[in-house]
Amino acid sequence: MKKNIAILPGDGIGPEVCEAATKVLSEIGKMYQHEFEFTFADLGGAAIDKTGTPLPAETLSVCKKSDAVLLGAVGGPKWDTLPGDQRPEKGLLGLRKELDLFANLRPVTIYDALAEASPLKDDVIQGVDLVIVRELTGGLYFGEPRERRGEGEEQLAVDTLVYSRKEIERIVRKGFEFAEIRGGSLTSVDKANVLESSRLWREVVDEVAKEYPDVKYSHMLVDNAAMQLVRNPRQFDVIVTENMFGDILSDEASMITGSLGMLPSASLSQDGPGLFEPIHGSAPDIAGKGIANPLATLSSVVMMLTYAFEMKDEANALAEAINDVLEAGHRTADLTNDASNALSTEEMTNQVIDAL
Amino acid sequence: MKKNIAILPGDGIGPEVCEAATKVLSEIGKMYQHEFEFTFADLGGAAIDKTGTPLPAETLSVCKKSDAVLLGAVGGPKWDTLPGDQRPEKGLLGLRKELDLFANLRPVTIYDALAEASPLKDDVIQGVDLVIVRELTGGLYFGEPRERRGEGEEQLAVDTLVYSRKEIERIVRKGFEFAEIRGGSLTSVDKANVLESSRLWREVVDEVAKEYPDVKYSHMLVDNAAMQLVRNPRQFDVIVTENMFGDILSDEASMITGSLGMLPSASLSQDGPGLFEPIHGSAPDIAGKGIANPLATLSSVVMMLTYAFEMKDEANALAEAINDVLEAGHRTADLTNDASNALSTEEMTNQVIDAL
Ligand SMILES: CC(C)[C@H](C(=O)O)[C@@H](O)C(=O)O
Ligand SMILES: CC(C)[C@H](C(=O)O)[C@@H](O)C(=O)O
Repeated sequence: MKKNIAILPGDGIGPEVCEAATKVLSEIGKMYQHEFEFTFADLGGAAIDKTGTPLPAETLSVCKKSDAVLLGAVGGPKWDTLPGDQRPEKGLLGLRKELDLFANLRPVTIYDALAEASPLKDDVIQGVDLVIVRELTGGLYFGEPRERRGEGEEQLAVDTLVYSRKEIERIVRKGFEFAEIRGGSLTSVDKANVLESSRLWREVVDEVAKEYPDVKYSHMLVDNAAMQLVRNPRQFDVIVTENMFGDILSDEASMITGSLGMLPSASLSQDGPGLFEPIHGSAPDIAGKGIANPLATLSSVVMMLTYAFEMKDEANALAEAINDVLEAGHRTADLTNDASNALSTEEMTNQVIDAL
Repeated sequence: MKKNIAILPGDGIGPEVCEAATKVLSEIGKMYQHEFEFTFADLGGAAIDKTGTPLPAETLSVCKKSDAVLLGAVGGPKWDTLPGDQRPEKGLLGLRKELDLFANLRPVTIYDALAEASPLKDDVIQGVDLVIVRELTGGLYFGEPRERRGEGEEQLAVDTLVYSRKEIERIVRKGFEFAEIRGGSLTSVDKANVLESSRLWREVVDEVAKEYPDVKYSHMLVDNAAMQLVRNPRQFDVIVTENMFGDILSDEASMITGSLGMLPSASLSQDGPGLFEPIHGSAPDIAGKGIANPLATLSSVVMMLTYAFEMKDEANALAEAINDVLEAGHRTADLTNDASNALSTEEMTNQVIDAL
């Protein structure tokens, strides 16, 4: 098969981890007779520096024409003083909206070989395997009005949390679909004892649930969910929630593994290209040193192979290769206290290619 | 001194833990020659059952005339099917607004004797001592409009996140004040890369900070804060944040101790009576059995003695008594796996009185 992949290296360690990904993808292409074509484009700080805007029209058009988008990371201190709507993150938010990437998948799994890195006790995290399905194009992130009103002490700042039944329905349906093919259990997280939008959310979940009689589902308040993720993360299979709650809970959930450098994400639309990106961010402190951990990005490639290209064997092979290099004891600097033994980005990437 | 205390037992285990509190307060009154007068009033489900409304006018008037309010807990499955604005929680939200309780204090401390109950590893939680200062009368909880618009798939549900400069300023100032008398460090949590209200919040923090040159302060994004509370909670001294973020983060933070049954809270206004309540909620599953842990409520009494009555010696004596009974190995059922050794609410209360 031939696939066009838009590569957006972005900022910080983004270019380094994207290089690892293209190398591994090329290898998989050779092994399985696929033609992966890469088109590079700018996003975030890198785009601001070149073009003055975080999401150039050219980038958007490259992404729209692609079969899938791979993103490194955006942001860094260099651009932190720019006004809000000219910041690198704005490029990412724009891309989500333009590609209608309403479904953000954040799997959280524990690699046995890395379990000791977790801040949580071993018996709490053993066997954790959950995925957060976060709504990504609605709610407080995009609601209008968002503005200032008045002056002085009485000045108001306003954001709007708005969801339509339709928006809720399509993400909730994704939640049920994933629950169906995974452990059969779905937790919908809201704040229905306070928010009107959460009450609509709950209504829609109860309705959609009728179409998935095999999925056991329940509602949980967001404050309780924040507790339960620490108390007993194993209780969760699929969690579905709105944009802001998903932002907070998915980052909390990722930290229980203790290995941020390992975790991938996928952002999917109904029919268009999906976006795949590691969750670790641009890590400006280690950028350019060649020591970034490429495994979260390679895990994002696993998700791309699975969801964008439906290449199951290829995805499994890469997932197993990642697991194998960890079991064999290979570590990048973020995964070990023994700096002298830490592999570089390139060395780790080559280990994965060997394991393939 | 003479003090009028409004007691709102509320629902579930609320009455049991409030009884423990009045007993201990009476004892402290005797020891230190104070006259604590208790006036009981209904709130939440208990009030709905008697009067049809979760916050009767009589209750509000009792609270307004008091020097401090002690609340047990509100809510339970019995009232979960009522429409949103007739639910027990609505009584609590109404009380917060009517008494202008804008500053919610949620201290999170680890009792050495209970550290093993934490889901986090010992070296992560040893020495944790932080307080979350949560804005409690603004933001998404009270913003207007909050409504449905339209019908069918296109139906919208809307909530509004709104803050005035003044509202932000008074809570941020509380944050700096607490930081000043504690460890000298303040973390302000927001989502300034997305929300207009957070950008105003950040501006105000930077302004108010000038008046507190001795406090080291920084900004942290809410998703990062949710991670850092799990990764390294010891880094925090005082956290100040808006209502919804505070709801989520304070519950997450309380779970890192592993002993919800221990944690108190205080909700303060500028000049009026404050409200003191354990954070554990109504625990309907164990209500009426006489086995609820009274220590969170007694810790809330410590906060009442401190903040409402400025009775430092009395507060210290009670805090020490609580610590002593734990060090002596006394446990209620929620704190031990050895059910045969678990004290009842009354027995634990008497242990504290003895230790006083
Ligand atoms: C960069 C930021 C706008 C973004 C978000 O809040 O969605 C990030 O935190 C994420 O989760 O992808
Ligand atoms: C009961 C509920 C409305 C309340 C809140 O969200 O504020 C509770 O969770 C709390 O934190 O006191």
